[in-house]
Amino acid sequence: MRMVDIIEKKRDGIELSTEEIQFFIDGYTKGDIPDYQVSALMMAVYFQGMNERERSDLTMAMVHSGDVIDLSKIEGIKVDKHSTGGVGDTTTLVLGPLVASVGVPVAKMSGRGLGHTGGTIDKLESIEGFHVEISNDDFIRLVNENKMAVVGQSGNLTPADKKLYALRDVTATVQSIPLIASSIMSKKIAAGADCIVLDVKTGSGAFMKTIEEARALAEAMVRIGNRVGRNTIAIISDMNQPLGYAIGNALEVKEAIDTLKGEGPEDLTELCLSLGSQMVYLAKKASTIEDARDMLKESIQSGRALEKFKTFLASQGGDATVVDQPEKLPQAKFQFDLPATEEGWIAGMDAEKIGISAMLLGAGRATKESSIDLSVGIVLRKKIGDRVAKGESLLTIYANREEVDDVKHLLYESIILSKEKTEQVKLIHDIITV
Amino acid sequence: MRMVDIIEKKRDGIELSTEEIQFFIDGYTKGDIPDYQVSALMMAVYFQGMNERERSDLTMAMVHSGDVIDLSKIEGIKVDKHSTGGVGDTTTLVLGPLVASVGVPVAKMSGRGLGHTGGTIDKLESIEGFHVEISNDDFIRLVNENKMAVVGQSGNLTPADKKLYALRDVTATVQSIPLIASSIMSKKIAAGADCIVLDVKTGSGAFMKTIEEARALAEAMVRIGNRVGRNTIAIISDMNQPLGYAIGNALEVKEAIDTLKGEGPEDLTELCLSLGSQMVYLAKKASTIEDARDMLKESIQSGRALEKFKTFLASQGGDATVVDQPEKLPQAKFQFDLPATEEGWIAGMDAEKIGISAMLLGAGRATKESSIDLSVGIVLRKKIGDRVAKGESLLTIYANREEVDDVKHLLYESIILSKEKTEQVKLIHDIITV
Repeated sequence: MRMVDIIEKKRDGIELSTEEIQFFIDGYTKGDIPDYQVSALMMAVYFQGMNERERSDLTMAMVHSGDVIDLSKIEGIKVDKHSTGGVGDTTTLVLGPLVASVGVPVAKMSGRGLGHTGGTIDKLESIEGFHVEISNDDFIRLVNENKMAVVGQSGNLTPADKKLYALRDVTATVQSIPLIASSIMSKKIAAGADCIVLDVKTGSGAFMKTIEEARALAEAMVRIGNRVGRNTIAIISDMNQPLGYAIGNALEVKEAIDTLKGEGPEDLTELCLSLGSQMVYLAKKASTIEDARDMLKESIQSGRALEKFKTFLASQGGDATVVDQPEKLPQAKFQFDLPATEEGWIAGMDAEKIGISAMLLGAGRATKESSIDLSVGIVLRKKIGDRVAKGESLLTIYANREEVDDVKHLLYESIILSKEKTEQVKLIHDIITV
Repeated sequence: MRMVDIIEKKRDGIELSTEEIQFFIDGYTKGDIPDYQVSALMMAVYFQGMNERERSDLTMAMVHSGDVIDLSKIEGIKVDKHSTGGVGDTTTLVLGPLVASVGVPVAKMSGRGLGHTGGTIDKLESIEGFHVEISNDDFIRLVNENKMAVVGQSGNLTPADKKLYALRDVTATVQSIPLIASSIMSKKIAAGADCIVLDVKTGSGAFMKTIEEARALAEAMVRIGNRVGRNTIAIISDMNQPLGYAIGNALEVKEAIDTLKGEGPEDLTELCLSLGSQMVYLAKKASTIEDARDMLKESIQSGRALEKFKTFLASQGGDATVVDQPEKLPQAKFQFDLPATEEGWIAGMDAEKIGISAMLLGAGRATKESSIDLSVGIVLRKKIGDRVAKGESLLTIYANREEVDDVKHLLYESIILSKEKTEQVKLIHDIITV
């Protein structure tokens, strides 16, 4: 088998065989096939696509390019959630304890990642004493005991995907549905998921700018998942404005606690109930989505979800009293309000720019080496569809520096006011089960 | 400027600017831009194409990536001929003396090359004493004195093209009209041509299998040439069977001498007159193509073309008596005829396979290190449209080994006989001036 023939086949729109996909992923992982052939193939895939069978084969070839996590010692069906990424996305912090509180095992492997704010682990580390350096045995024991644990990413998961992604990033071949879908699914499957719930974001703050693109990606992933024996469901949710009000690490932990208490932002609560009920249903803890939703609502109302969060924090060394005393979270030194320059309605937000503003304050990492400031960030006071009076605060900036004109300038640019009444944005655009 | 943005632009079908093309060729030549980005761009070009302006810019960027030969000290308009390559193509050996004999300067830089037979230099070296190791000054002096000289390729011509071609070869991006056209044109222009006559071959023995493909390539090259100030004309000629009868180095020299005497194969003679009259016209030695053709015919009839060949050979140390005593050329030890197994008409030939047969006898180089046998090869006795009796010779094999069953087997496979009368193949399919 020769790589140049595989490139030519795909260039000419011919389906690649399972063996050909395996050959190219194996050879690339081992370094036998050079970058320049793989980038040419990636561009051919960009133009010619891959069918469902090829996508599934690519996914599984990448899964088997490295370690695969074995979660078989954990009782029950392991359901993992994945979000395609947005701004102020606090769902993981809420969803974990929420679904764990109704008996769904949450065995979360998480990274620190690059972005506007830190990853789930960074956010959790804003709680004193909390740590993710636990052994594999402890991780499994904790999930069996408490139904929830979070561990840092270890092992050599999907090295083919890592290599491929780095190459695609510099060869303009990132934006390809088959490649994005296989990349995401391979990581989830290698991390040991039995079932997968996907939160595909769409809008100004998302990778997929239109609902059509988001739907295509969602369908691609659901089809791969079902084909390789992992029940998969996707929700297409809006990211034309940040989710919830908080953007920042400790600020999002506070918002997650509020949401678990039943006092969180409406959109964040709704998205967590939607994703959570799918997870509970896939884990076979409820026979319908409606039943699952009722169970989760009851768990919030009764305080069991919040209690589960405390148990989880304590089990990994965290100070659980933070849940009742959120002032124990890292606090920024300065707060600045951003007053509306005229009256009107919020017509639009540039979620991406708001995220960059949080990053300018120090909430996120630009490179792997950057350190992040857990206390800083932004809390929105208004969202799309809200009325605002002249001089009323649009949002509050939490900073550890006295001068934030750069951030203010960017934030003013990010919020569009209208003289006419505007409508709220629809949160859940679609649910894809294929 | 970033290479990834250039790839993305082309991927999205947007025209690249002159500066962007310059940036990528410069960076790639210097090694600043890696193979994996260039191969992705080549695949994007494969799908999105390049317009006339981009093709011209790419050509000139490659021309200026290395040395450019200065032929300004040679009097007159320098017209170069290029063939896209076929089997048994003896035109250069005939055309050189033919057009030189009517005053067109022929300053030929030639390589040895890989292929079924040797390159022009190898063929000429079958004449005792002939050599191409002459200084640049001598080369220019000889062209001014005799109107013809041939020198080996020296200097660092179009290094960008060399690097790009090697990469395209292993990434399935060879078959792209803009890339093929720019590659060919850049080499001719760097070699110092003022005007260019192209012989684009089409058929079973050519790179371009259909007339449509050949026409697209021809038009692309003619447009580039004219845009960058090099008058360019292309002839689309047939390569469904070898040109002339001889395939092999000394055998083709013999055939070239016959043609210069006016006793050559009909198709070779016709193609040389067609290409030659275009060259004479472009060099402004005749005011119409018809006049040019008459001049060339006259030159053959009067013996001046043959005389020019002798002068040229002698000027570079060659034994010119070979022209009158072709038995002085290297002779193969054995000859084998290939008898027709039944009577009929020749319906088709696989020129590619006939070329490979010559190579199996030792007439060509498989790698740069191979040595070639100048004496061996094949002489056809019949061509498409010819009647053949059972047992009559289809061709003669000239070999230096006693056992040639492998070659005979391949040659039988290459010639298709029909019970019904067949037609001769049209030689000149089109002339492209755009």
